[in-house]
Amino acid sequence: MRVLVTNDDGVYAPGIAVLTVFLAEAGHEPVVVAPDRERSSVGHAITLNRPLKLQKITGPYPEAVAAYSCDGTPSDSVVLGLEEIAPDIAVVFSGINKGPNLGDDLTYSGTVSAAMEGLVFGRTSVAFSLDCREEDGERHYETAGTFAVHLLKWLSDNPLPTGVLLNVNVPNLSPSLVKGVQITRKGIRAYEGKVNRLQDPHGRTYYWVAGRVEDELVEGTDVWAVAHGYISVTPIHLDMTHYPSLEILCGRGLAEIDLERRALPDRESTS
Amino acid sequence: MRVLVTNDDGVYAPGIAVLTVFLAEAGHEPVVVAPDRERSSVGHAITLNRPLKLQKITGPYPEAVAAYSCDGTPSDSVVLGLEEIAPDIAVVFSGINKGPNLGDDLTYSGTVSAAMEGLVFGRTSVAFSLDCREEDGERHYETAGTFAVHLLKWLSDNPLPTGVLLNVNVPNLSPSLVKGVQITRKGIRAYEGKVNRLQDPHGRTYYWVAGRVEDELVEGTDVWAVAHGYISVTPIHLDMTHYPSLEILCGRGLAEIDLERRALPDRESTS
Repeated sequence: MRVLVTNDDGVYAPGIAVLTVFLAEAGHEPVVVAPDRERSSVGHAITLNRPLKLQKITGPYPEAVAAYSCDGTPSDSVVLGLEEIAPDIAVVFSGINKGPNLGDDLTYSGTVSAAMEGLVFGRTSVAFSLDCREEDGERHYETAGTFAVHLLKWLSDNPLPTGVLLNVNVPNLSPSLVKGVQITRKGIRAYEGKVNRLQDPHGRTYYWVAGRVEDELVEGTDVWAVAHGYISVTPIHLDMTHYPSLEILCGRGLAEIDLERRALPDRESTS
Repeated sequence: MRVLVTNDDGVYAPGIAVLTVFLAEAGHEPVVVAPDRERSSVGHAITLNRPLKLQKITGPYPEAVAAYSCDGTPSDSVVLGLEEIAPDIAVVFSGINKGPNLGDDLTYSGTVSAAMEGLVFGRTSVAFSLDCREEDGERHYETAGTFAVHLLKWLSDNPLPTGVLLNVNVPNLSPSLVKGVQITRKGIRAYEGKVNRLQDPHGRTYYWVAGRVEDELVEGTDVWAVAHGYISVTPIHLDMTHYPSLEILCGRGLAEIDLERRALPDRESTS
């Protein structure tokens, strides 16, 4: 099967190389289009105000693999991959990300957003992330790569519901230590103390964003699953409408706001 | 009421100035923290790999308004605004964006993503966008500004459901021509022909992403409402889990994938 492979860690990152090699060794035909440098946490950014270039590379890929670097975002890479390089490709795999994409991190994630872009194009789309930390010595990308091959086989028999992509998070364990696969919902991952205030060598204040992760470990969620040694698979869609609120807001008169009536109490008395 | 005001068109854009002036004139206390330049379509990007700076500016704002430019994204501006500048602020208004944020554009939008960041911090958060086009001569930011003042009053009596923000799109009409307010769900806005292939003066190929908008005008959606002269208000949440798929995926054996069993047909026969 032909698969468009992209990521947000950049086209030379180890995760995307492992994903590509595993797919190729399983007899599939991966085509790589990925950012020329790390573009983590860029969200669903797309480049509209400047031109983009594609460059064919050899990189860390098997010789038979067509690979391109793109000077834009992960989503740009998917757009160019699907419109310019390989319009016939039906599957988009994004990853393997160095680090998890859990809870509310999804909208920040370049890895997941690239899969969202695949979904916008109507393709079968999956984001893969490895739940490793900066300080981890070993990174078990091979576990995610193994799962990706199994999942691709499963997907060929089981098309996803329309408008749904899969967000996969793999625990940083060797395949034999993984407890299994859980289908999960979004959990809660909060960041405490997001902003660090520092001083530059000239004595001027600057800030660095980095928070301490605070997970709510509730069974059935993505954060619980990977924390307990399971591969987490979360079905994601792009409709962020909160449907229960539609009726609530109507019932409270929001739709009756009249722009011609002055809203200010101190002016209402004179109007 | 104190309101953190941000945007993605940059701190000197006309839309954010109108929003700030309307709030100030209505007796509220806006505090502006916004990107130092245009950061449209950056999505929920957040800057983790380099430091950020804040600079106090006077800009196009009333003298009493505290205003800061930030060398990061819209979401960075909200993080710094709420953690460093004004931690006591309960309301985040993002906009008024030059151009609409409808349908699937939400995840690309810096304007909406800034409101998402406000929601992550537990604040009452609203994104405002004006449905104007590049070729429009007149831009009725005053209509969105007027609605923002009305909405702030409404919000003071009607707290939003937990975890919900409002995505407001205002038609490019003077207030007297607006037909009313509709509470809407996400509609479908597709882009045809996203990639334009061009040649630079050296004869090398480059690409520019820009598509022709294709709306599905279905009543009850955001795209329908603004196309018909209504202000569209869509309640948005950050949980992108597609709940109906949880059971579907479980039923099809996805959770039974075993990493130790080889997935490859040609290897299975030998294992």
